[in-house]
Amino acid sequence: MTLEDIYLSMRKDLKEIERELAMAIKTDQDVLYDASYQLFRAGGKRIRPIFVLLAGYFGNYQLPKLKKVAASLELVHMATLVHDDIIDDADRRRGKLTVKAEWDNCVAMSTGDYLLAKFLLLITELNNEKLHQIVSKALVQIVEGEIDQIRDLNEWDLSFREYLRRIKRKTALLIALSTQLGAMVSDARPEVVRSLHQYGYYTGMAFQIIDDILDFTGTSDQLGKPAGSDLRQGNITLPALYAYNCSNVNVRLKEIISSGEANTRIDEIIGLVKLSGGIEYAQQLAERYITKAERALKQLPPIKERETLYEIGHFIADRTY
Amino acid sequence: MTLEDIYLSMRKDLKEIERELAMAIKTDQDVLYDASYQLFRAGGKRIRPIFVLLAGYFGNYQLPKLKKVAASLELVHMATLVHDDIIDDADRRRGKLTVKAEWDNCVAMSTGDYLLAKFLLLITELNNEKLHQIVSKALVQIVEGEIDQIRDLNEWDLSFREYLRRIKRKTALLIALSTQLGAMVSDARPEVVRSLHQYGYYTGMAFQIIDDILDFTGTSDQLGKPAGSDLRQGNITLPALYAYNCSNVNVRLKEIISSGEANTRIDEIIGLVKLSGGIEYAQQLAERYITKAERALKQLPPIKERETLYEIGHFIADRTY
Repeated sequence: MTLEDIYLSMRKDLKEIERELAMAIKTDQDVLYDASYQLFRAGGKRIRPIFVLLAGYFGNYQLPKLKKVAASLELVHMATLVHDDIIDDADRRRGKLTVKAEWDNCVAMSTGDYLLAKFLLLITELNNEKLHQIVSKALVQIVEGEIDQIRDLNEWDLSFREYLRRIKRKTALLIALSTQLGAMVSDARPEVVRSLHQYGYYTGMAFQIIDDILDFTGTSDQLGKPAGSDLRQGNITLPALYAYNCSNVNVRLKEIISSGEANTRIDEIIGLVKLSGGIEYAQQLAERYITKAERALKQLPPIKERETLYEIGHFIADRTY
Repeated sequence: MTLEDIYLSMRKDLKEIERELAMAIKTDQDVLYDASYQLFRAGGKRIRPIFVLLAGYFGNYQLPKLKKVAASLELVHMATLVHDDIIDDADRRRGKLTVKAEWDNCVAMSTGDYLLAKFLLLITELNNEKLHQIVSKALVQIVEGEIDQIRDLNEWDLSFREYLRRIKRKTALLIALSTQLGAMVSDARPEVVRSLHQYGYYTGMAFQIIDDILDFTGTSDQLGKPAGSDLRQGNITLPALYAYNCSNVNVRLKEIISSGEANTRIDEIIGLVKLSGGIEYAQQLAERYITKAERALKQLPPIKERETLYEIGHFIADRTY
């Protein structure tokens, strides 16, 4: 089974989620609609919706509930993207102009606020207080991640632990919510919900680490933006932190950073990071998270969706785009 | 009874709300805390908490519920303020530096996001699905108001209707929520909730119109920012719209605006607006809203808090700060 096969097998239900999402962003405010629609159309991998649906199979699968959970989490994801692009001063995402580039920072801010409000509206339709509590606690942490990102801009003296906390808030929490809530609204047993939550969390960590690796190793075509974009935006990720703090290229790297010329010597930095072993270190860490995710999967009943989740973990660890 | 007497009589419960609010903004994220605390300390009139408490008397007054409602609405208010300051490029509010001025736009954006997340967390503690629905619908509209504000920047060709819709979203909705939800969580009868909602809405409209008037007629000391700040920020309000579209100073005004020198000729514009009768027109409209608010009050049981609400309406219409 390839990743494409997985998408294909869930095509019908994923389409329903797209419809739910398209409905959710409707407004008579032209700019808000256009900006939201741009984010919607850019799409991305829709990895959260897939996780929500797969988790649903571990309980009583009900698409009407699952699609609301999936669409609302995707709204949070879109909101964080559009606000992150302001912080990162990013002009392109997935090959398309960002909202802040096509309009401006104020429109991007309002669009994010609007998507958050719509998320709240949608999640309310589920009439589930426990879900509300889980989601609102997670949202606080996700937003705290936004300020981590500001604080950590151009910060090379960062511990791996701080990096891991940042990517937890930036990515892993929302993926963990996807599997957790998908199972929860399907009335799966508590220990099943817990294992799926763990699976989502570990897979999310691996997903972001690989994302950060690809920014060094991918091509513009694969990434939809130039390689090295993270560095250019001052987003110092694990491979770079390893090179700067733990490798034998650190002297040369520190010299470039302290010269204040980092921004014009990105290719040189990328070369040093590749030399340092930072990519391999990050790759190993991602694989360790995938192993942990697999351990969580083993706690689950052996239905065929468990196998699918297992495969997705491997796609994530091995992906090149 | 003066406005100060009203505050004094509710001092104890208002203090509880302040404590709830102070607790709500706690985080180990230093910047988020400092920025939120700055907004918290700036305080403002705490008009929403007062309305929540007063509305509570029309049902079964329970401070533990009321203080959560009040604090959560105040969090939304703070979130909109800090985001509005980005849109308005405002450096001062109530005599103090704004978050965007003391830190930067990114920090201000994250602070607003954080306050919204904390609002969600707090409102969830009330365990009331109907409340969730009302609040999330209102939040969507409030955020739509943010984009209205961006769209309407420096827009002199605006209908009064569009202006009224903007201030509804910017101010009146949240005040209407205060009286509505205060009554609702106190299990007041539906028709009482409805009348209090109307009262809040009309009073909120009057409140914002007067705010917009004061920007022309107040002193820096009274306003905590220079007079004419709205105009300087491109926020064209009712007195100016009247002058531009309906008065005999319109030719001179149009000449200034079309010359592209509006920003350096603010004092001249203020003079023309004052000459135009726009201030008086806006004042009359505010009074009409207060009359409507009073009509809503008449539907309520004649307890002493009804009298207090009546008086607050008059303070709002006559205030000079």
